[in-house]
Amino acid sequence: MKIRVLVSLKPGVLDPQGRAVHHALEGLGFQGVDEVRIGRTVELDVADSTSDEALADMCEKLLANTVIENYKIEKLG
Amino acid sequence: MKIRVLVSLKPGVLDPQGRAVHHALEGLGFQGVDEVRIGRTVELDVADSTSDEALADMCEKLLANTVIENYKIEKLG
Repeated sequence: MKIRVLVSLKPGVLDPQGRAVHHALEGLGFQGVDEVRIGRTVELDVADSTSDEALADMCEKLLANTVIENYKIEKLG
Repeated sequence: MKIRVLVSLKPGVLDPQGRAVHHALEGLGFQGVDEVRIGRTVELDVADSTSDEALADMCEKLLANTVIENYKIEKLG
């Protein structure tokens, strides 16, 4: 079973990498970009028997820092 | 308009970060994880008038390294 975990910074947490990308896009001449936030994805290939609780547990314990990050689990089938 | 760009390593490109996460998951006792690949997301808030070509151009020029990475543009509305 393919799983994608989307990890993103919580609103309000500063994102210097996103600001740098925003600045670079403007430097390249792209207009109308308002905000840029960088996140990461973790694509896992797990056994079909893996429970939703186990997946949430992986995120809480390792994949995301829940103090400053949100995560979302998507099943890709 | 909210846009999410998913950037992932092309198949066949080594992913040491993914291997480290895989190893750490096993160390934490999670069973049945077969493969782990790490990617990143760039969430952009752009003007509604931004064309698909401009978005693809941003990806080609800055957001993804198309030699080793694939990108996918998703409109979040």
